[in-house]
Amino acid sequence: MAIEIERKFLVVGDAWRTAPPVFYSQGYLNRDKARTVRVRIAGEEAFLTIKGTSVGARRAEFEYPIPVWDARELLALCEQPLIEKNRRKILHEGFVWEVDEFLGENLGLVVAEIELPSEDSVFAKPDWVGEEVTEDARYFNSNLSCTPFNRW
Amino acid sequence: MAIEIERKFLVVGDAWRTAPPVFYSQGYLNRDKARTVRVRIAGEEAFLTIKGTSVGARRAEFEYPIPVWDARELLALCEQPLIEKNRRKILHEGFVWEVDEFLGENLGLVVAEIELPSEDSVFAKPDWVGEEVTEDARYFNSNLSCTPFNRW
Repeated sequence: MAIEIERKFLVVGDAWRTAPPVFYSQGYLNRDKARTVRVRIAGEEAFLTIKGTSVGARRAEFEYPIPVWDARELLALCEQPLIEKNRRKILHEGFVWEVDEFLGENLGLVVAEIELPSEDSVFAKPDWVGEEVTEDARYFNSNLSCTPFNRW
Repeated sequence: MAIEIERKFLVVGDAWRTAPPVFYSQGYLNRDKARTVRVRIAGEEAFLTIKGTSVGARRAEFEYPIPVWDARELLALCEQPLIEKNRRKILHEGFVWEVDEFLGENLGLVVAEIELPSEDSVFAKPDWVGEEVTEDARYFNSNLSCTPFNRW
């Protein structure tokens, strides 16, 4: 198990677009916050990920690589629709930002996440990083599946 | 993915007790029949298993070995109580029978399962195999967690 400490922000402007995107397709075998089970295809790789209840920005996370072929079949078992997004990774002053440009019913939504070594880590924000939404449940990927951005 | 074709029977008598038991502890990250997610510790091994909807005795199954240490933490995330049972494997005329002697709130329940290569496979029943309960949902392990045998 790992403890994931992640903060999430809205994105402004277009400067983040220069990084190359990787296409992600993901779905949920359970969207319950206490035991989230995610299937994800990330480019040429696939993962099964289980997360426990969030406490602020901290969350227990268990991740296992699985064959992409299995992941395709598992995505068909997931609650529909799936989440599709282009992810870009951008290094900024020693931290990697993951910028998710959502597609499908979440088109128009772009969020940036930073994974931190501790909850009080100090980090520099790039110019294109806006308002923090870490604890706003609407932005949880598990919720974007059932209540997508185009219905907000 | 594998297709699991399994039939389940009640057990009569005690002849099955001669085989050595292995202790199983398992729980569910999702009990939904369309996307069951099971965490299981079986003796010294552990597995994460996803199953789709059953069609008669057939069910899609995806199983991944995971570290026992992870499994202990994942069991704590599962819906409680967990299922605990002693499993015995018994070879009878070319087929392996798995006999589950349930413990805890399911104490008193013993069922035998046989995994088959096809739905119309012909197999011999040992004397200690009784009534078939393959399609009786009460006997699904995922249901024995929320509605245990001692409350039937």
